[in-house]
Amino acid sequence: MAKSKFEYVKQFEAEDKCLPNCWIVIRVDGKSFHRFADVHHFVKPNDDRGLNLMTRAAQCVMDEYKDVVLCYGQSDEYSFVFKKNTNVFNRRGSKIMSNVVSLFTSSYVFYWPRYFNTQSMQYPPAFDGRVVLYPGDKNLRDYLAWRQADCHINNLYNTCFWKLVQERGLTPAQSQEKLKGTLSSDKNELLFNDFSLNYNNLPEMYRKGTVIIHQKEKELDANSMSPLERSPRNSVSFSFQGDYIPRTRVQILHSDIISEKFWTEHPQILDGVKK
Amino acid sequence: MAKSKFEYVKQFEAEDKCLPNCWIVIRVDGKSFHRFADVHHFVKPNDDRGLNLMTRAAQCVMDEYKDVVLCYGQSDEYSFVFKKNTNVFNRRGSKIMSNVVSLFTSSYVFYWPRYFNTQSMQYPPAFDGRVVLYPGDKNLRDYLAWRQADCHINNLYNTCFWKLVQERGLTPAQSQEKLKGTLSSDKNELLFNDFSLNYNNLPEMYRKGTVIIHQKEKELDANSMSPLERSPRNSVSFSFQGDYIPRTRVQILHSDIISEKFWTEHPQILDGVKK
Amino acid sequence: MAKSKFEYVKQFEAEDKCLPNCWIVIRVDGKSFHRFADVHHFVKPNDDRGLNLMTRAAQCVMDEYKDVVLCYGQSDEYSFVFKKNTNVFNRRGSKIMSNVVSLFTSSYVFYWPRYFNTQSMQYPPAFDGRVVLYPGDKNLRDYLAWRQADCHINNLYNTCFWKLVQERGLTPAQSQEKLKGTLSSDKNELLFNDFSLNYNNLPEMYRKGTVIIHQKEKELDANSMSPLERSPRNSVSFSFQGDYIPRTRVQILHSDIISEKFWTEHPQILDGVKK
Amino acid sequence: MAKSKFEYVKQFEAEDKCLPNCWIVIRVDGKSFHRFADVHHFVKPNDDRGLNLMTRAAQCVMDEYKDVVLCYGQSDEYSFVFKKNTNVFNRRGSKIMSNVVSLFTSSYVFYWPRYFNTQSMQYPPAFDGRVVLYPGDKNLRDYLAWRQADCHINNLYNTCFWKLVQERGLTPAQSQEKLKGTLSSDKNELLFNDFSLNYNNLPEMYRKGTVIIHQKEKELDANSMSPLERSPRNSVSFSFQGDYIPRTRVQILHSDIISEKFWTEHPQILDGVKK
Repeated sequence: MAKSKFEYVKQFEAEDKCLPNCWIVIRVDGKSFHRFADVHHFVKPNDDRGLNLMTRAAQCVMDEYKDVVLCYGQSDEYSFVFKKNTNVFNRRGSKIMSNVVSLFTSSYVFYWPRYFNTQSMQYPPAFDGRVVLYPGDKNLRDYLAWRQADCHINNLYNTCFWKLVQERGLTPAQSQEKLKGTLSSDKNELLFNDFSLNYNNLPEMYRKGTVIIHQKEKELDANSMSPLERSPRNSVSFSFQGDYIPRTRVQILHSDIISEKFWTEHPQILDGVKK
Repeated sequence: MAKSKFEYVKQFEAEDKCLPNCWIVIRVDGKSFHRFADVHHFVKPNDDRGLNLMTRAAQCVMDEYKDVVLCYGQSDEYSFVFKKNTNVFNRRGSKIMSNVVSLFTSSYVFYWPRYFNTQSMQYPPAFDGRVVLYPGDKNLRDYLAWRQADCHINNLYNTCFWKLVQERGLTPAQSQEKLKGTLSSDKNELLFNDFSLNYNNLPEMYRKGTVIIHQKEKELDANSMSPLERSPRNSVSFSFQGDYIPRTRVQILHSDIISEKFWTEHPQILDGVKK
Repeated sequence: MAKSKFEYVKQFEAEDKCLPNCWIVIRVDGKSFHRFADVHHFVKPNDDRGLNLMTRAAQCVMDEYKDVVLCYGQSDEYSFVFKKNTNVFNRRGSKIMSNVVSLFTSSYVFYWPRYFNTQSMQYPPAFDGRVVLYPGDKNLRDYLAWRQADCHINNLYNTCFWKLVQERGLTPAQSQEKLKGTLSSDKNELLFNDFSLNYNNLPEMYRKGTVIIHQKEKELDANSMSPLERSPRNSVSFSFQGDYIPRTRVQILHSDIISEKFWTEHPQILDGVKK
Repeated sequence: MAKSKFEYVKQFEAEDKCLPNCWIVIRVDGKSFHRFADVHHFVKPNDDRGLNLMTRAAQCVMDEYKDVVLCYGQSDEYSFVFKKNTNVFNRRGSKIMSNVVSLFTSSYVFYWPRYFNTQSMQYPPAFDGRVVLYPGDKNLRDYLAWRQADCHINNLYNTCFWKLVQERGLTPAQSQEKLKGTLSSDKNELLFNDFSLNYNNLPEMYRKGTVIIHQKEKELDANSMSPLERSPRNSVSFSFQGDYIPRTRVQILHSDIISEKFWTEHPQILDGVKK
């Protein structure tokens, strides 16, 4: 059996190296998660178990890929930012993307029981993935701002929508009709006037989504004795326990990443890779 | 919060449509499965549980993507062949590939307990994925032949290697040294003379890998009453039971797909898509 | 001066190999040739000098690239078909395309005086280029049919348009208005009834465009003494004279390449490359 | 004749948009120019006519494409830098590249007689082209530095090589042998000691190549009456005369573009496009 006779077929594989000196963003996105959420009785508009499981899966990716400098998640999506000069998998786009999507998916299924306890998973979910390159730091920040703005807009809408359905008894169609054409200010007022809800008092995780970054070295030192006691405001030092030993410490935040403040406080995210 | 201000970043996403009228092959491949197999005490050189779990995961992909006309797996890899004229996800390469990798991974973790029972998974595994296009039917067959030849070569080697280690007490290094430079015929003789093993009597699944194809329509009709009774020689009609209802019937085979016979017996695989 | 310090920038060059076993089509297309034709007083709707110069330039490309099995031209465009298994420039798409476009352009300017005599070129023209891959023989034939159908449709329209302008004194706008919504049959009748012109009697070069193929070996032998005397019907054996010695003999045809006949008569075009 | 029946073949054309916010560099490179230079008796090691013709052709490209902020040429190559945010041809790489290569080639043949007078062109030359993206300003400067360093290294070598051949009577092979393994300092000394030539006194065009940039607005104003009188040191204000009216004024320089000075003096080149 001549192996070599067939090996020419390897030449049909196309190279897909990512342009050097660009931020590599991998975004994973739940496939048909509307249905998945329904089947598994997710709490609407936000299910803490589901959101925390997403974050746990994202963290597995960050543990594995040290060149991910930041990841951001909301709803059924997570974006992973590889540093500009990463050489992971020799910058092959499909290789990086498929590995991230697969590990994320794997972790989501693997850790499901920790978050959903006795409620068993009904069928295996899937996530799609994409690779996007951003040449400039501003482009990257605008990408993340785009996703966080999307989180806000959707959450404000969904909060209103489900209030109308759950507390006012409107049908989904009626609720949708009522919200058609409303501005953000209209929705804020609706929540405040009709449901005595100040939108800004909702948990930041719902309004801002979740940011995960590596902990700075000196914080790691300071924290070495008792990481959980020293978690900075607005973050939770994550200490993975049990069967799987993490190799880094990360910070889980629900910060505003659109405005300047976050980037001023965490200059190392963009700095380490300036070229 | 102006959403539109950031939306320009969508323009950085590149289109990656697959050339029309080409077979689209997605191959998924275990990442660091050597270690994964060790940690989970896989039987060497072939672990039935592991191989069958791979096949179960592959079948989930085939259930979901009707345009997969055939898939072939061996060891820790599986290749999925989408028909030439598929329009799934508008032929976007990354979209197809990421969805297949993710669903495969998800199913692997999800169905683990059915195959490994009380032995729990220690950590979430990952698979990478790639897209390869094959314009000609011959190219496609040569691709599949390449993978099956690879299965044979590796299995023959591994069978010898583990015999030497497990039954002769050689160290892995000694075993490797002993097999260095040997031909297939040498290995066959080694197995026969030293271990009274006729390589050709080993299970076909080990020697040929696994092929999954859709059952032909008329067979489906004929089988409609009792699919399990009528499974053709060399195949097992797979009937999925339990919480997840499959939408097609498939055939699981361990046939030789290098020689002509298989393709003559299953003309519909290549036929349906001639252009 | 350290050369190596800068050489890393070569890594930014992306590979763009054409998928193997596909026909590689390079199409060159005049840029703003409407204006170029006006400035140089091209005869409307067809200028023999301009069309023949295009064909001369195309022939220079065929002389240089032996793997071009056929080229087809009409109006200000020419398409070059490289055989499926060509390995020219290691199948790098940009390399092939840029070389073809450049040599075509160069030859167009170089041979201009032979066709336009004392009328000098007013400014250097440009052509754009593109690479398109066709996996199937049928796809390739359909591509060529598409271009030839385009030739016919445009030529029929233009013939009517210019008759109305040149012989009836209509303004371009009036002429355009009159032809709006007309079918092919309407246009044929217009030419016949109003201008006593049977469209099918127009030169084939105008109605069908120009096909160039390599002469078959045995014809070359037979022709070796006096190529010009033995030119088959419907073709002109091209014998390049003067300062530049061609290395092949080609046939210049104005055949119908949409119907089966042409391909039956010239089986070698598609045959030599079956895989 | 159904046009639509064939139009599906357009779907085989792949999109190739350049990543936004990157410098787009198009490099054109003479094909087999060694032979072309021999056939046309180019003076060795540098032929002023040939170099100036290259620059004239480059200028035609700059006249046509206002988004080219700088071009750099040496030997038989020229690189064109499109500003980061150009939207020319909707950033389609093949379209930009093929148009630039074609116009460059066209102009080279068109203007040949102005530079080579009665010496006629023997055959049409060709140039290949490529597209390279550079995300960072530093990457772009390093690219240009790479080409200029290449110019220096080759020119120093060629100057020595041809001195040995032309003035010492060595054969090319002997000359090559003698220079093997020599450092820049060795070559400088060879020229100085054996040929009384101070390399640094050679024309800058030979040692540095040629840079073309757009003239700054205020210089244009100041120069409006008599551009040729006010040309700054180290540059020639180019005023195109005759049949073809240029739409911009450019500066032709032979400056060092590796060191900081050039970029400090011409901040507008990189500035206009910061994002």
